[in-house]
Amino acid sequence: MRSSEEFNDWYVEIVEKAGLTDKRYPIKGMNVWTGYGWKAMRLIDTYMRQELDDTGHDEVCFPLLIPKNEFQKEEDHIKGFSAEVYWVTHAGENKLDIPLLLRPTSETAMYPMFSLWIRSHADLPLKTYQLVNVFRYETKQTRAFIRMREIHFFEAHTCHVDFEDAERQIAENLEIMKKLAKKLCLPYVLCKRPDWDKFAGAFYTIGIDSLMPTGRTLQMGSIHQYKENFSRPYDIKYEDDNGQHQYVHQTTYGMSERILGALISIHNDEKGIILPPDIAPTQIVIIPIISKQEPEVVTNKCQEIFAQLKQAGFRVHLDDRDLRPGNKYYDWELKGVPLRIELGARDIQNGVITIARRDTGDKSQIPFDNIIEGIRESLLAIQSDLLTRAQKQHDESIFEITDISEAKPGINVMNWCGEEDCGLQVENATDMAVLGIPVEVEPKSGNCIVCGKPTEILIYVAKTY
Amino acid sequence: MRSSEEFNDWYVEIVEKAGLTDKRYPIKGMNVWTGYGWKAMRLIDTYMRQELDDTGHDEVCFPLLIPKNEFQKEEDHIKGFSAEVYWVTHAGENKLDIPLLLRPTSETAMYPMFSLWIRSHADLPLKTYQLVNVFRYETKQTRAFIRMREIHFFEAHTCHVDFEDAERQIAENLEIMKKLAKKLCLPYVLCKRPDWDKFAGAFYTIGIDSLMPTGRTLQMGSIHQYKENFSRPYDIKYEDDNGQHQYVHQTTYGMSERILGALISIHNDEKGIILPPDIAPTQIVIIPIISKQEPEVVTNKCQEIFAQLKQAGFRVHLDDRDLRPGNKYYDWELKGVPLRIELGARDIQNGVITIARRDTGDKSQIPFDNIIEGIRESLLAIQSDLLTRAQKQHDESIFEITDISEAKPGINVMNWCGEEDCGLQVENATDMAVLGIPVEVEPKSGNCIVCGKPTEILIYVAKTY
Repeated sequence: MRSSEEFNDWYVEIVEKAGLTDKRYPIKGMNVWTGYGWKAMRLIDTYMRQELDDTGHDEVCFPLLIPKNEFQKEEDHIKGFSAEVYWVTHAGENKLDIPLLLRPTSETAMYPMFSLWIRSHADLPLKTYQLVNVFRYETKQTRAFIRMREIHFFEAHTCHVDFEDAERQIAENLEIMKKLAKKLCLPYVLCKRPDWDKFAGAFYTIGIDSLMPTGRTLQMGSIHQYKENFSRPYDIKYEDDNGQHQYVHQTTYGMSERILGALISIHNDEKGIILPPDIAPTQIVIIPIISKQEPEVVTNKCQEIFAQLKQAGFRVHLDDRDLRPGNKYYDWELKGVPLRIELGARDIQNGVITIARRDTGDKSQIPFDNIIEGIRESLLAIQSDLLTRAQKQHDESIFEITDISEAKPGINVMNWCGEEDCGLQVENATDMAVLGIPVEVEPKSGNCIVCGKPTEILIYVAKTY
Repeated sequence: MRSSEEFNDWYVEIVEKAGLTDKRYPIKGMNVWTGYGWKAMRLIDTYMRQELDDTGHDEVCFPLLIPKNEFQKEEDHIKGFSAEVYWVTHAGENKLDIPLLLRPTSETAMYPMFSLWIRSHADLPLKTYQLVNVFRYETKQTRAFIRMREIHFFEAHTCHVDFEDAERQIAENLEIMKKLAKKLCLPYVLCKRPDWDKFAGAFYTIGIDSLMPTGRTLQMGSIHQYKENFSRPYDIKYEDDNGQHQYVHQTTYGMSERILGALISIHNDEKGIILPPDIAPTQIVIIPIISKQEPEVVTNKCQEIFAQLKQAGFRVHLDDRDLRPGNKYYDWELKGVPLRIELGARDIQNGVITIARRDTGDKSQIPFDNIIEGIRESLLAIQSDLLTRAQKQHDESIFEITDISEAKPGINVMNWCGEEDCGLQVENATDMAVLGIPVEVEPKSGNCIVCGKPTEILIYVAKTY
């Protein structure tokens, strides 16, 4: 594992050198998404959309601003957020009658409308999502993609006839997450957060955590079961078959730009970042190796291959800058382009292109008449190998411990009796956080690591970002 | 032409009935983009992106908030906007040292960064754009898509070595607009705005106006030549070949959700709206005509055709609700779905589907073995006919006049000497606005409609939204 300090220094430098973000914007914690970073984020968004559309969610877009009085309807929720919201108090020269806040998340914007939209059980389930930026006044040190004050965010909000149907939605969300993680080459753990750490207003919260190379976990997203906690204050009711008015049960599923932060943190080497082919803004870069004799032969062939790959739907770039090939390699390796094509006069004579994999550095050759298929296979191999390697590293950083003094960087698995007191003692003794009870992991008999009581409950414990 | 009152009532009702927007959100002028409306807007965005990407623009995403001190650097600009910006003054419990404003447009967010990004002429031209929401505290009556306080907006910002290169960019923008309008079936006029009505900070402004059925024009977007008006206060300089530091010349090109407002206003009839196939969230709806005998034969065939069309890339919906076909026709006609497929037992016996065009109501039949091609042709015909019809209506509402008393609803074309005094007299006498000097229209000899001086300058004059 890497030390936090060394890793942080590397991270802060690489995200700017790779052209993903610019933090020189004159407000701390609000960075500019530069072209390369924004393209990567938009490709991640595209997968999100695909999964949500395929499961019958409707994309919507709610206003950014929320009136103070609507925000205050759910008490726990406002307590959870009131220290970190931005307030709009004036417009033009006027003081507003009711202050407006910038959405930190959209429950309190959406639910007054849901109350109007839902009349009968025929309107249920209501499944919506939006991809927007949210705003949180962070007081801790900010860091690109990981701790920001303006955060790119997707949030799915659903309403159901009862608790069981909401539970089915949560099961569907876990499936969506599984598919997404495969596309993104992103190992993760799911934990049902302890009560003292659940989302403001939630009945329960499942955290989606990524394990970073420092042994700390990063919460990339979360899934919440709200039960009737919001539908009661916001009066979201439907008429059931018997003509009775019932409160809906609600869930949310949110993930942020931290996904990109986790990707960069997990897939990299001394040369720079490594982007999984599915989300790389440029999947393939073509570098002409120009020789003195007949340079246009190489240039023409490169352009031909570029057109061929573009036509086939790959995201490809031809780097025809007047620079040495080695300098170009350096740039594109830094930016994590998964596959490089080198093409010189000798390759043309041999009727092949040379390809170099960003993840392994392996070079191989593909005959001209098999370029599309050969490139497709290489990208698939990179995609698959990146996930396998990351998953192995991830799995190796999860340890079972039976004595609290054994806790170390990574995810510590231990038995817990279920009492909040013992949980908080674990946190104090380890200076770590209880991530919660792992989801989809078999319980295991043992003794509470604090009080020794026999129990089957396991918890994950780690330092967090 | 339709009276303003009748048209406005119709418009306000139809945008909600068609499911494009919900104005019951508790802040006036900030509506919810419901699923159907947001899909249409996103399809419009997709064409924008395509045209801008193809012309070498990079998509970026700048922060929403702008510090007051950066905003104030360009004097004319702040004067133009200060009455309509939203101010964030507090975060959590704290009063902010420097108030932040919600972008009304992004010049003052972007240009401090451009100043860091541009060093030498190799960095130019810099061509960027973003698709974001902007905020303007409108005091006039708000109306969905047309006059809102949160506005969905695309804005392209470019920097150039000199005025001529910036002029070339503007010529490119006019080409982009031409292509876009064809996709959207949207006639428009381009006018160089008179000096008294140009954008705050611009050297000149070209307005992109659509002519509405009331005879008023709606500004859907604009293109600005900034010259060095922003690069000087924001210090955006490059080193030229001689080692001299030069200020860049800048342009912007922005269009808003008004595009959708114009589309709806122009393409409709007594049954509802009519969406051009290229931006219709649902291009084709399939309505099964179920008979008592063997209902599953019809259902199965409908599902087969649905799958076939979806596979071919069409946006298709199978309406299998338990309702009479007539009720379904009513719903989808209201929402403007361009093509309807009706399929009953008799059609199956004849080996055909029946299609009904939303724009003309014409019905025809397509044999089963030619469905994909037949549907494609029909959609292309609708797309093309919608533009032709709208263009005809548009052209017929542009009149030349030689006496100010002849001014009437529509676009009035007249000669003008070029003096601001005469221009303002035209506005006073007609209670209309001078849209400006039409771009790409030949000048014509005549006499200024006010002072009688001989001139070649033509102006467009109309009531505006």
